[in-house]
Amino acid sequence: MSKRDEIIAAAIRLAEVSQPGQANLSVRAVAKEAGVGASTLRHYFPTQADLHEAVALRSIDTVINDFSIADSSRAPADRLYECCAQFLPTHEHRDVQLETWFSMHLHALGAEKRAVSRRLLEHGHRVTYDSLHRWLNLLAEEGHLDPTEVAPTATALFTTVDGIALHSIISPETMTVDAAHEQVKWTIDKLLSSWSPHSTS
Amino acid sequence: MSKRDEIIAAAIRLAEVSQPGQANLSVRAVAKEAGVGASTLRHYFPTQADLHEAVALRSIDTVINDFSIADSSRAPADRLYECCAQFLPTHEHRDVQLETWFSMHLHALGAEKRAVSRRLLEHGHRVTYDSLHRWLNLLAEEGHLDPTEVAPTATALFTTVDGIALHSIISPETMTVDAAHEQVKWTIDKLLSSWSPHSTS
Repeated sequence: MSKRDEIIAAAIRLAEVSQPGQANLSVRAVAKEAGVGASTLRHYFPTQADLHEAVALRSIDTVINDFSIADSSRAPADRLYECCAQFLPTHEHRDVQLETWFSMHLHALGAEKRAVSRRLLEHGHRVTYDSLHRWLNLLAEEGHLDPTEVAPTATALFTTVDGIALHSIISPETMTVDAAHEQVKWTIDKLLSSWSPHSTS
Repeated sequence: MSKRDEIIAAAIRLAEVSQPGQANLSVRAVAKEAGVGASTLRHYFPTQADLHEAVALRSIDTVINDFSIADSSRAPADRLYECCAQFLPTHEHRDVQLETWFSMHLHALGAEKRAVSRRLLEHGHRVTYDSLHRWLNLLAEEGHLDPTEVAPTATALFTTVDGIALHSIISPETMTVDAAHEQVKWTIDKLLSSWSPHSTS
């Protein structure tokens, strides 16, 4: 692990043991946790904002769960749904999740957009696409999907998930949590079933 | 046509002959065009904002084009794509269209959301869903779609279109105008082809 990565890892450890929103990611605390001097830390992260952005970017990289996507004993649609469901709102936290989703886009794309928010959103966007490609490539290798259709299928699923988030905010009585999950399940069945002639290969 | 509708129609006529953004929808001009007194107009529309909202709502109702969706001599996927394409950005006006799309959502859902913007967005949302249902019901009647799947298919298409708009803003180099149109075409083919065993009925 590079020194830079060690510092980020230390900051993430500090963030994990903190109360939400109260992580002590001061230069001094992070340097102590990483076992480096403040000047070393400043060499890699000239400002606290640089450090915070690096931590946020790294968190995005590790937040997506592959669950049992590689478990070929299970139905492909079930595994893919389980993976996609982590992008959907939950009963317990729906309002907060949708507000976070919208304000993330607002800060990145809105009138008073900030460059750091834009970079975080773009990074999260890329990481999500990469995950979808990884999952669909696995299913294609098992013969459940035409390998040449991994890319449009990934785009179809990601645009569906983001469209569902937006519609959950616009029309919360129609696009309920259950409706959102059912819709993704339905779309996955459609996208995988069109390849069914080959799915037993 | 009710008196109220006549006033709205008069306002729309005035808006249509005006330069964009310069429509003279003053109470006096609209009352004159509608052939009613100012007090009659104020009876139906107490404030100018009420009149403007009514005009905006009515414009949404008439803006969606059914093209040749009912022309059964053409391939169903082509007709449906033609209809859905009107929700996608175009080469000529992509930036303005995406900015309008985003700011519509921003004003309706953002931190400083306004009730009138929210009503307009919700109305446009409903009208779009209704159009998708109408088109898909026509295709289902022709046997190109399972009638019980009209609702999830409409949701799949609408969430895809809105997700594509969002992704066009986040990642304009990847989600180009051509990529957006290809993606919707691909999704339509997928959604209709899964019903192919029955499409000749």
